[in-house]
Amino acid sequence: MREVYVAGIGITSFTRLEYPLVEIAAYPGLMALRDSGIKKIDHLYVANMGSCRINHQSGLASAVVDHMSLTPAGAETIENGPASGGSAIKQGYMAVASGLHDVVMVIGAERMREVNSLDATDFVATLTHPHAEYIYGITLPSLAGMFTRLYMEKYGVTSRHLAMVAVKNQANAMDNFYAHIQQEITIEGILDSPEALTNNPYVADPLRFFDCCPVSDGGACVILATKDVLKKLEKPMIKLSGVGQATDSHAIHERKEPTDLLAVREAARQSFEMAGIKPRDVDVAELHDAFTILEIVESEEVGFFKKGEGHIALEKGVTKIGGELPINPSGGLKARGHPVGATGVAQAHEIVLQLRGEAEKRQVKNAKIGFTCNLGGFGNNVICLTFVKEEN
Amino acid sequence: MREVYVAGIGITSFTRLEYPLVEIAAYPGLMALRDSGIKKIDHLYVANMGSCRINHQSGLASAVVDHMSLTPAGAETIENGPASGGSAIKQGYMAVASGLHDVVMVIGAERMREVNSLDATDFVATLTHPHAEYIYGITLPSLAGMFTRLYMEKYGVTSRHLAMVAVKNQANAMDNFYAHIQQEITIEGILDSPEALTNNPYVADPLRFFDCCPVSDGGACVILATKDVLKKLEKPMIKLSGVGQATDSHAIHERKEPTDLLAVREAARQSFEMAGIKPRDVDVAELHDAFTILEIVESEEVGFFKKGEGHIALEKGVTKIGGELPINPSGGLKARGHPVGATGVAQAHEIVLQLRGEAEKRQVKNAKIGFTCNLGGFGNNVICLTFVKEEN
Repeated sequence: MREVYVAGIGITSFTRLEYPLVEIAAYPGLMALRDSGIKKIDHLYVANMGSCRINHQSGLASAVVDHMSLTPAGAETIENGPASGGSAIKQGYMAVASGLHDVVMVIGAERMREVNSLDATDFVATLTHPHAEYIYGITLPSLAGMFTRLYMEKYGVTSRHLAMVAVKNQANAMDNFYAHIQQEITIEGILDSPEALTNNPYVADPLRFFDCCPVSDGGACVILATKDVLKKLEKPMIKLSGVGQATDSHAIHERKEPTDLLAVREAARQSFEMAGIKPRDVDVAELHDAFTILEIVESEEVGFFKKGEGHIALEKGVTKIGGELPINPSGGLKARGHPVGATGVAQAHEIVLQLRGEAEKRQVKNAKIGFTCNLGGFGNNVICLTFVKEEN
Repeated sequence: MREVYVAGIGITSFTRLEYPLVEIAAYPGLMALRDSGIKKIDHLYVANMGSCRINHQSGLASAVVDHMSLTPAGAETIENGPASGGSAIKQGYMAVASGLHDVVMVIGAERMREVNSLDATDFVATLTHPHAEYIYGITLPSLAGMFTRLYMEKYGVTSRHLAMVAVKNQANAMDNFYAHIQQEITIEGILDSPEALTNNPYVADPLRFFDCCPVSDGGACVILATKDVLKKLEKPMIKLSGVGQATDSHAIHERKEPTDLLAVREAARQSFEMAGIKPRDVDVAELHDAFTILEIVESEEVGFFKKGEGHIALEKGVTKIGGELPINPSGGLKARGHPVGATGVAQAHEIVLQLRGEAEKRQVKNAKIGFTCNLGGFGNNVICLTFVKEEN
């Protein structure tokens, strides 16, 4: 296999965006071309979950490659629910590693403003099991609520721990110009104050408003290329060193232990093994915190902390910027936002910024190894990526 | 790059299917496992265009991999309009060629019965240019109608030539148990008889009912694997020797010459060059005849015949089974049917059958080299594949 490097990155603000989906996708692509100095690509992947339903657009990748005047490069749309971005990066990896293509652009984009909040909840719920879950009216927040309750009872996680994730990630996002949520919150304000029940109402007990990611529009891009291409660009050598992916039972009740996310465990194991590193070698990570509980659980399943001890590390400040292993310096899905198809690419974007030392006020010092975990479904299709900075 | 072979194939009937989309996808997958003797896969691709809109299901690949008990294999849905199947096979090629995976299952599946015919037309039209075409109410048949009229005026193609494609492909489908349309027709019956205007009404002048493919449900599968895996299986060695892909301007009016399908030309060139063969070396081909005109045009653009001479070869019987270069022995999209996401995989399925010598009554004699051309959009994203039978 040929080695694969990140040649360029780009991102839009994650927020409510006025402009059409094709442009939400193209804009970070053009930023990444400028960032890299590359003018021509061999192939394009666009990660997107719902354009066919939400935006009345199929063949999105063909539209985007034309909109950027990058024809005749081939193009596909990759869909893996909220892990579409991670999946698209994996395809880009294989396209370059195989020798078929030298320069591959990977964009993630989603425009969710066309659906109202009820529709958005239904749309995201279509990734649950069609006959065992969806038809009974399950939603992602309700699944996550039940999962959280079990986790609390089993491992001693409290509402206070969940709130700590929200407070940390919203604080991180204050230093991220592109983040959706630009609001500093406190434990006092969202849990203890008399206004807390109004400010932070229950969504699906025990999950409250500030435990859930927002519904965002946005796009992000990474350009992957061979080592030879990178050397000519004089860019930092950020290598995509590990690619792991695993699936699990679709219906959660079929899992042996519903509080385990085995696909996260397996995808992370593959990614670390391929990169030749151990979990605790990681300097900075972006985890898939669509709900606050998920950051805690993933930090255990990927091997950063022992099972059931993620909330203790959180409590000690280990996962803050300045801690031993900062998690979600970008603000994560919780605060950077979660345009479903774009999220996996945005995670990689943040890690590349961090490894390049370009993350400004939220820079993790001496970050050399970065990691992302992107969940499709409720942990039933997971992509973990490991990025390593090589000295030029 | 590692060499890539076809280890197993499977297909459903292309028709109106009662059972759920997940099962339409899983069934040919299980057939292909049995055909190959393989029990475990490393990765799954599912080609599908519209499940998110039509079937209220996202994350389809995760659902299918679980339904077949093939977890923890990774899985993605690949969307490239009606070329989703070709695109998914290309991803499978790269996954094996790169060395990341040894055995990759590629399924194409679509269940269109949930939409009525007006909705189906709108759904497929979402692959046109959103601002330059779709919002003006363009449909695929109307685009194809205008395209056909131009082609007739420029190259002397007549309604009789179009009808010959329909007659040939419906005759071929009579010998294909899995084909949607099981009806023998004659030029007399659909063009010359007094009842022709009733039997074969205009859809979008000059295209009539029998010039258009049906709206089908269906699924197909190919399993791709390394040479080492194939050798252990004692299956015919069908090699995926050439993979080409190209995009073109999304809006047709932006193309220099609207009667040229440059993406077909370029994708075929790449595919033949990679396989090290010339177009006329091909023994059997499956082309993307969603409308009869497209079979004629593609037979020229891929290099089988000179530009403007495809209809002459057709007239001479060159493209019939028994002719020098049989096209669409399966019946093609026209008669086998066109469950959009499944079509590209079904094309490969037919070529593998033909190269194995397992196509029964529709067998093309001594077929050693096969070719497929799969169109996404109106020729704006095209995948061409070349398959070569190697002696065991």
